[in-house]
Amino acid sequence: MYDMTIKLLGGDKHLYEQIYEHIRHEIWEGRLLAGERLPSTRSMADYLQVARSTVAYAYDQLLSEGYIESRPYKGYFVCPIEGMVDMAERAKDPAQEAAPRETVVQKPLYDFSPHGIDMSAFPFSVWKRITREILSEDHQELFARGEAQGDYRLRETICRYLHSSRGVNCTAEQIIVGAGNDYLLMLLEKILGRHVCVAMENPTYMRTRRIFHSFAYPVVTVPSDASGMIVSKLEETDARVAYVMPSHQYPLGTVMPIGRRTELLKWADGGADRYLIEDDYDSEFRYRGKPIPSLQASDDHGKVIYIGTFSKAIAPAIRVSYMVLPERLLEKYNNECYFYSCTVSRIDQRILDEFIREGYFERHLNKMRKIYRSKHDLVLRELEPFAESFRISGENGGLHVLLHARGAVKEAELIARAAAADVRVYGISASCTEAVPKLEGTVLLGFGAVSEDDIRKGIAQLKGAWL
Amino acid sequence: MYDMTIKLLGGDKHLYEQIYEHIRHEIWEGRLLAGERLPSTRSMADYLQVARSTVAYAYDQLLSEGYIESRPYKGYFVCPIEGMVDMAERAKDPAQEAAPRETVVQKPLYDFSPHGIDMSAFPFSVWKRITREILSEDHQELFARGEAQGDYRLRETICRYLHSSRGVNCTAEQIIVGAGNDYLLMLLEKILGRHVCVAMENPTYMRTRRIFHSFAYPVVTVPSDASGMIVSKLEETDARVAYVMPSHQYPLGTVMPIGRRTELLKWADGGADRYLIEDDYDSEFRYRGKPIPSLQASDDHGKVIYIGTFSKAIAPAIRVSYMVLPERLLEKYNNECYFYSCTVSRIDQRILDEFIREGYFERHLNKMRKIYRSKHDLVLRELEPFAESFRISGENGGLHVLLHARGAVKEAELIARAAAADVRVYGISASCTEAVPKLEGTVLLGFGAVSEDDIRKGIAQLKGAWL
Repeated sequence: MYDMTIKLLGGDKHLYEQIYEHIRHEIWEGRLLAGERLPSTRSMADYLQVARSTVAYAYDQLLSEGYIESRPYKGYFVCPIEGMVDMAERAKDPAQEAAPRETVVQKPLYDFSPHGIDMSAFPFSVWKRITREILSEDHQELFARGEAQGDYRLRETICRYLHSSRGVNCTAEQIIVGAGNDYLLMLLEKILGRHVCVAMENPTYMRTRRIFHSFAYPVVTVPSDASGMIVSKLEETDARVAYVMPSHQYPLGTVMPIGRRTELLKWADGGADRYLIEDDYDSEFRYRGKPIPSLQASDDHGKVIYIGTFSKAIAPAIRVSYMVLPERLLEKYNNECYFYSCTVSRIDQRILDEFIREGYFERHLNKMRKIYRSKHDLVLRELEPFAESFRISGENGGLHVLLHARGAVKEAELIARAAAADVRVYGISASCTEAVPKLEGTVLLGFGAVSEDDIRKGIAQLKGAWL
Repeated sequence: MYDMTIKLLGGDKHLYEQIYEHIRHEIWEGRLLAGERLPSTRSMADYLQVARSTVAYAYDQLLSEGYIESRPYKGYFVCPIEGMVDMAERAKDPAQEAAPRETVVQKPLYDFSPHGIDMSAFPFSVWKRITREILSEDHQELFARGEAQGDYRLRETICRYLHSSRGVNCTAEQIIVGAGNDYLLMLLEKILGRHVCVAMENPTYMRTRRIFHSFAYPVVTVPSDASGMIVSKLEETDARVAYVMPSHQYPLGTVMPIGRRTELLKWADGGADRYLIEDDYDSEFRYRGKPIPSLQASDDHGKVIYIGTFSKAIAPAIRVSYMVLPERLLEKYNNECYFYSCTVSRIDQRILDEFIREGYFERHLNKMRKIYRSKHDLVLRELEPFAESFRISGENGGLHVLLHARGAVKEAELIARAAAADVRVYGISASCTEAVPKLEGTVLLGFGAVSEDDIRKGIAQLKGAWL
């Protein structure tokens, strides 16, 4: 491991900038070589006596500029950069150490992030026009404080949308509008109370798991099969709440069949305090078969807390999510949490409301479905030559597919070989709380933000790297 | 008490609307008379088997339309409405009960809410122009997910503003931008941890107290004197954190002198885990003497958590607040809470940033200071004839003054007599956790949202009602 000695200065320059610049300089000067491991953010922070996030910022900057890469379970490594010597070479020819060459630094050319979304088709001009029109309305009201749960008008709109597109049965009174899922989960903590044991799958959406941890909620991992969380195993735990993504599990992309849904609902019926959190994060995108209704649609006993967001279907910057509370929890919210002000500005609520009411949201969704379906189909076509060496899963919905190596090759090697060919793919281990043997050679290939041209070229590169 | 029998129907009409309409109808029909008490929201909710908030919604609607009024510690009462019979009259002439007269319903003509702000001078056209310009920028970036703490550029801007106007010493790294104070307090709970005993004054800002309660934080009330929280009394408690408003205490309007500030800081120094939360909610408005610097400005040991908002100085709908964390808590945030996404949209952050950077915020503040100062001075002038019967306090800053009756008259009577003269004033008891004997005849007179003409007329009405 590289021994880091950075002289941090006071004054105007931020600490993270100093760390970033130091490491970049070391890479440029050839003192840090491709493949070399950097200290962990924690040990670096301890060593330099700075906050861990200061180091994380610096690493993020280096990551995003392609100087270093993150390898699951391993840490951060200096990237192989064109024109630069790597560790292996240095070992072969120690003389090179003294004479580093000029370097050209590049980001990975093809980034198949599962979190990227395509903003190219977003109707900016419509959004702008609606914004302009709304700002010309009666300002006094628009700039005043609004209802805690979100403006009633927007809640009615969301209610109608959820009913028609997701089969969700609710009234506007049950809906709480908030600035992002993280915030709504924080509010949910206040409603559910302390020490709620939550069941999650493995792999799962790690962001939510971290949030439950920060609530000091005990989180138990319940094994899954092809249908999702195994209810008999859930029964064996102390869980009061189970967090599931029935329409499109992240990261596996599986759809929970009706049988398993019924079992889960029955589990929830088994205790007055039991609930299911349904995170319906990207159910809008489904390319084969009938649309999958929400779990909430089958819930007759008020057991499902339904959470969804506009960040994925519209834009990440649109910080509007919604939570549908079952009656009993709504009552608790009304009695105990009614005073938390809404976190979304009324202007933004009005813009979104108009965007949906005027039909632009549906049109945008249809357009995006077409675009993503076309990318999805292209990915599957381009991956045909991989069939002998890889099994594909999680297709037919969402914005990524999974590739499972049929051989003994491991995730880290797949990622490293892809990186050497200028392609970034994502390991499933980042979503795992404990290793899943059958997923050891599995990577995620997201296509939301990748152009069709780049999908073709990127997968061609992968062919060279993997086959 | 009125015995409420409402047949609630299913179907399209919301429950709260049905309750609202029923009660309004009963008032119109003369079956509910002025001065009659309504059931509490809780008992009404129990009786009708609906959520308490459904009843609260209905009551709020009736309140805002002037049908009913809320009396501190007493409950909700039907308002005396012009042309309508009241209870006393009915007692005198029972025949009237059968023949209710046509009625005209009115809102209180003059509402001196301490929470109202004047939006008439807000530079809507500038806000619109900036919005338009920003929406014409590079959209991809603007609609993408931003930094968790808020965009660095905006944090730098806030940092400069806080330094120059409030003497706050911090870096942009210490600032967290969030959608409202409530949200920032929720985040602070995650940083401070569980079971933190918080000291508050009495009276205090009840909204924050409710929020601490919902964290299940034990809240202790520490007695105050004219300088604010008494530190020797604070020492006697188990409090780890003290919540104060040193620049302008709500609702008393007192300014904490430097001596008391130093004592408080010394108290905080007495324990590694002790902190002061400084809520600097409306320090922008100060009409006499030098500007009051923040408590954070005197903090050399990283003991002050500084919280402020743009809701008051710009508009309630601008859901942007900021929290300045001392180094040790920043480290905890960075290690344990860094994954909570920012709750303010990047577009809104950019608009606000431009608004401040282009100098409009300062110009707007100056304009508002002039407007509020003029209203403030007018209120004091118009209140001169009250001097014999009332003592005034909390003047020279903020958006309200306090009137203390010199005689034995109680708050509820002052409010009722004002209401009968079409004026709404606000009792201090709503901000009290336990009765404060010397504040028994105290009301708040807010002037932020009242026009100068209405200030003159409203206070003239009060003269008739109270003197």
